[in-house]
Amino acid sequence: MLEELKEKVYLANMELPKRGLVTYTWGNVSEIDRATGYFVIKPSGVDYETMTPDDMVVMDLDGNRVEGRYKPSSDTPTHLELYKRYADIGGVVHTHSPEATSWAQAGRSIPLYGTTHADYFYGEIPCARGLTQEEIDEAYEKNTGLVIIETFDSRGLNPIYTPAVLCVNHGPFTWGKDAAEAVHNAVVLEEVAKMATKTELINPKVQSAPDRIRDKHFFRKHGENAYYGQN
Amino acid sequence: MLEELKEKVYLANMELPKRGLVTYTWGNVSEIDRATGYFVIKPSGVDYETMTPDDMVVMDLDGNRVEGRYKPSSDTPTHLELYKRYADIGGVVHTHSPEATSWAQAGRSIPLYGTTHADYFYGEIPCARGLTQEEIDEAYEKNTGLVIIETFDSRGLNPIYTPAVLCVNHGPFTWGKDAAEAVHNAVVLEEVAKMATKTELINPKVQSAPDRIRDKHFFRKHGENAYYGQN
Amino acid sequence: MLEELKEKVYLANMELPKRGLVTYTWGNVSEIDRATGYFVIKPSGVDYETMTPDDMVVMDLDGNRVEGRYKPSSDTPTHLELYKRYADIGGVVHTHSPEATSWAQAGRSIPLYGTTHADYFYGEIPCARGLTQEEIDEAYEKNTGLVIIETFDSRGLNPIYTPAVLCVNHGPFTWGKDAAEAVHNAVVLEEVAKMATKTELINPKVQSAPDRIRDKHFFRKHGENAYYGQN
Amino acid sequence: MLEELKEKVYLANMELPKRGLVTYTWGNVSEIDRATGYFVIKPSGVDYETMTPDDMVVMDLDGNRVEGRYKPSSDTPTHLELYKRYADIGGVVHTHSPEATSWAQAGRSIPLYGTTHADYFYGEIPCARGLTQEEIDEAYEKNTGLVIIETFDSRGLNPIYTPAVLCVNHGPFTWGKDAAEAVHNAVVLEEVAKMATKTELINPKVQSAPDRIRDKHFFRKHGENAYYGQN
Repeated sequence: MLEELKEKVYLANMELPKRGLVTYTWGNVSEIDRATGYFVIKPSGVDYETMTPDDMVVMDLDGNRVEGRYKPSSDTPTHLELYKRYADIGGVVHTHSPEATSWAQAGRSIPLYGTTHADYFYGEIPCARGLTQEEIDEAYEKNTGLVIIETFDSRGLNPIYTPAVLCVNHGPFTWGKDAAEAVHNAVVLEEVAKMATKTELINPKVQSAPDRIRDKHFFRKHGENAYYGQN
Repeated sequence: MLEELKEKVYLANMELPKRGLVTYTWGNVSEIDRATGYFVIKPSGVDYETMTPDDMVVMDLDGNRVEGRYKPSSDTPTHLELYKRYADIGGVVHTHSPEATSWAQAGRSIPLYGTTHADYFYGEIPCARGLTQEEIDEAYEKNTGLVIIETFDSRGLNPIYTPAVLCVNHGPFTWGKDAAEAVHNAVVLEEVAKMATKTELINPKVQSAPDRIRDKHFFRKHGENAYYGQN
Repeated sequence: MLEELKEKVYLANMELPKRGLVTYTWGNVSEIDRATGYFVIKPSGVDYETMTPDDMVVMDLDGNRVEGRYKPSSDTPTHLELYKRYADIGGVVHTHSPEATSWAQAGRSIPLYGTTHADYFYGEIPCARGLTQEEIDEAYEKNTGLVIIETFDSRGLNPIYTPAVLCVNHGPFTWGKDAAEAVHNAVVLEEVAKMATKTELINPKVQSAPDRIRDKHFFRKHGENAYYGQN
Repeated sequence: MLEELKEKVYLANMELPKRGLVTYTWGNVSEIDRATGYFVIKPSGVDYETMTPDDMVVMDLDGNRVEGRYKPSSDTPTHLELYKRYADIGGVVHTHSPEATSWAQAGRSIPLYGTTHADYFYGEIPCARGLTQEEIDEAYEKNTGLVIIETFDSRGLNPIYTPAVLCVNHGPFTWGKDAAEAVHNAVVLEEVAKMATKTELINPKVQSAPDRIRDKHFFRKHGENAYYGQN
């Protein structure tokens, strides 16, 4: 079932090592088929080098494995919560990519320092709080998803305008309309994180870019007045 | 028309990912044919992996598309202003290359710290001011070009001696006698930016190199007394 | 003799340049066969590019060469001490990988800043003290092994839970159940060291991750309640 | 003439881009034949991608071109002074490799922070002073060589024990018994420079490694009591 989607999710997963975002098996990508409510995700701890599209796991939104010989990624419950709450997203990615993970470990949101950031993310990339002992014990991966949602709710952020988050002491999640776009956003986030670190190194007193730059670049590429690209 | 020029501009664009200067479609190169007054530029948002010489877009200096099935790069009006004002330049490049972009985001000109810099750029690489709301609303990309020109005019800089600029919160533009030299200068700028960051990290109190080093190295490679290379 | 083990040790050694952990011949991997008490190790100063499985050297735990046309790695006595003292480890790696070596040169243990670290190492990576003149003169490489053991003993660390150490002014050793796992841990250590450096750069006042995060991630992958992967 | 030496010098030059030490044509390697007193060096400003062994230039120690269709590297007079003064060296390399060049731009000698450094260089890598206006005007490249020699003389350094120098605001020179060893030392210098920068970032108060570590590691690999490798 969902053979085409498995192929897409497989290819999106394979982009991660190709783009230098993962070491060993430290990442996972999923995409949802909204018609059936099933999503396809990477199996847990399987090598990228030997993995095939058939190894992908089909899950439903109650967390049941619908098809697949492997156990799904241990981060599956986080993906699931994001799909349930955000009806407009179709793909989710988690990595330990080093530049973004360093910001997560530092416990800081990534300020918007320039147009590379503003072309994709409408404002800073938020850093979500850590889980309590109770949240860890009860359901670690599920509560990771709920804390991401709490972060966007409490700060009034639109997940479509800011398709990325940092989980403190952990690493980034990104998303998009499908698995490929979610991976694209993970690559951009890594580049943006790298440049933010260097920017502060070059000028420790640097301020965020003006709102007018953020607005110009984000809406040059997104929304009804976009004019970047061929559409 | 201009088939040979399209091939040159295509190849110059393809140097950018090969040299590690661009992620996805974040860069564009153009070259002008001064006989016709037409310039050839990369199409907007088209993948480097599938792009062909035929996809290049031919523009005139009034901003009209003369030939090409695609829309030109969204940065075309910036290239155009540079060609109109600087009669001696034949190629222009824009990238978001991470080292130079980090200096642009930091809002600092790159000091001349050594001979690698002085071999190509006669003094610091200037960082141009940001655009006002009015300049953004009126014509963002065109005014980006005009602010670059204002920067060189107001600081008394010769664009042939300093073929690069940083646009604050944005990234670098470089230029040269043709597209290939403009790309060469973009590669050098990235290397110079990287070393300037490290130089300040190693010695936070470092001063610029003496003028005599700048003069010796720049004129060893440029002008009538040059003796570097085979000419 | 031990042809299969020579092949395994050869392949584990070849992972080091492939993963970017060694320049020239700056690394060595060994694995022990507990049945015979013999271990197989890389020869000293032999190029990775021309090395073959037959070049591996077979040693016993008294430091005698049992088989092999080459002299063993100069670090052999360090490997030997670790095998003698830690009955549960089967493979040992030494490199000068730049990120971990920089922490060793800085004389600092690597704090546990996030889940990437906690997935593999239960707490900080210890930095062992330097050798005295007497220890150097008496038996430099053997005493390097004894100082590693002293470090784990005096700090009450479990070498199975923390399969890595930094030798001050020198570089890292890692280990595991076999040569492949020891190399895996060397790769992870390098990534963890790189991110720790960046983490402190982004937030100079950063604190270690909470113990509950360390416990959750370490025991998600290790021990009887592990649920990461397919086992 | 000297066809074998041209081949060796060609191959040594080609190692530079392969090892990531040069961008474009920013480097040159030479080797001397002490029997004839001739040395072979890379031509000036010729692309590595199209260069052949036949393009190498043969020079004598008076600075005359003995054979070759191209002009020699503009840095030839620096190589020449080193060959004239140091009878025991057979190969010389100059690059603008970014890590070592950043130390040169910072105007600092590289402290000995660990065994990677001590395995090759017996003490800090000295940073030589800049040239005066008179020295530049009289003979820039020749005087660069003389200032290197002055640095070793005035600090009592043995160029065989410390086969590298940084020229302030410029970049590194390295040497060895032949071109291949000089390139090897250039690669090691770059690695050592990179780790020294990171070491100070991790611990701004770090001190140099103890002399006993320097002595142990240098003489483990060099001199009559060496026991590293197969000799």
